[in-house]
Amino acid sequence: MTVRPGETRGRMPDRADATLTFIGRIHTPFVRRADCPRRGRPDGPLCRLLVDTAWRPALEGIEVGARIEVLYWMHLARRDLLRQVPAGASAALGTFALRSPVRPNPIATALATVVSVEADGLMVRGLDCVDGTPLLDIKPDFRPTEE
Amino acid sequence: MTVRPGETRGRMPDRADATLTFIGRIHTPFVRRADCPRRGRPDGPLCRLLVDTAWRPALEGIEVGARIEVLYWMHLARRDLLRQVPAGASAALGTFALRSPVRPNPIATALATVVSVEADGLMVRGLDCVDGTPLLDIKPDFRPTEE
Repeated sequence: MTVRPGETRGRMPDRADATLTFIGRIHTPFVRRADCPRRGRPDGPLCRLLVDTAWRPALEGIEVGARIEVLYWMHLARRDLLRQVPAGASAALGTFALRSPVRPNPIATALATVVSVEADGLMVRGLDCVDGTPLLDIKPDFRPTEE
Repeated sequence: MTVRPGETRGRMPDRADATLTFIGRIHTPFVRRADCPRRGRPDGPLCRLLVDTAWRPALEGIEVGARIEVLYWMHLARRDLLRQVPAGASAALGTFALRSPVRPNPIATALATVVSVEADGLMVRGLDCVDGTPLLDIKPDFRPTEE
């Protein structure tokens, strides 16, 4: 894998300190990575959170209109860059100062709105990931009330 | 592991679809799980994000006062409940309708404020996790500007 000027490569994560189980897949209109918008929009296209049969009972209590946090696995991203140059930027920044998919643990967090609750998952708006992205978790959104 | 009335147990995740590497540890004043507040507060105690040596260059560009999203691994949580009864609640809800630590992939997301940038990590406020919690990721907070 190439490294652009200013970028620093570390080692690829080589330990399995914990393991993940994909709970389903996300279906979106974005077929290739190049089709994905830079960030999801509340008025973006309908996307489907298709939840594996075993985990569907865990959806009970999620309602239409709910704001949810969606965690997914950015399966196409490399994991070895310590410093990287974002698209359109002139200088490198540390990976933890960026929301780039390229990171040691490529877990994305996104906020979405539930449009409908289906037998096999949820229809939502707000996501920007590529079609077929592995789903990790769904949580109610929570912002501290103090803010 | 026990199941309370109204709770439903599924299978434990038994596949390793992806692996995680811990990038450090979180040090907090909360020694046991019972010491942890229900949620982090912006004016909560100072906590340390101790980042492993290999990943410290990835902190470059994070500034004091920044709002960050911290992802960590809830290593003490069981992973097999589909429906659970939250503390103080009378009825069960689906796991994905709750922010309980008990979930197939026990990844927590929390917002924190950077109080200082150290050679070995960050001092922050806003976390509620137990001392020694494995750290997975640090990202700049991002709320869509449309909201």
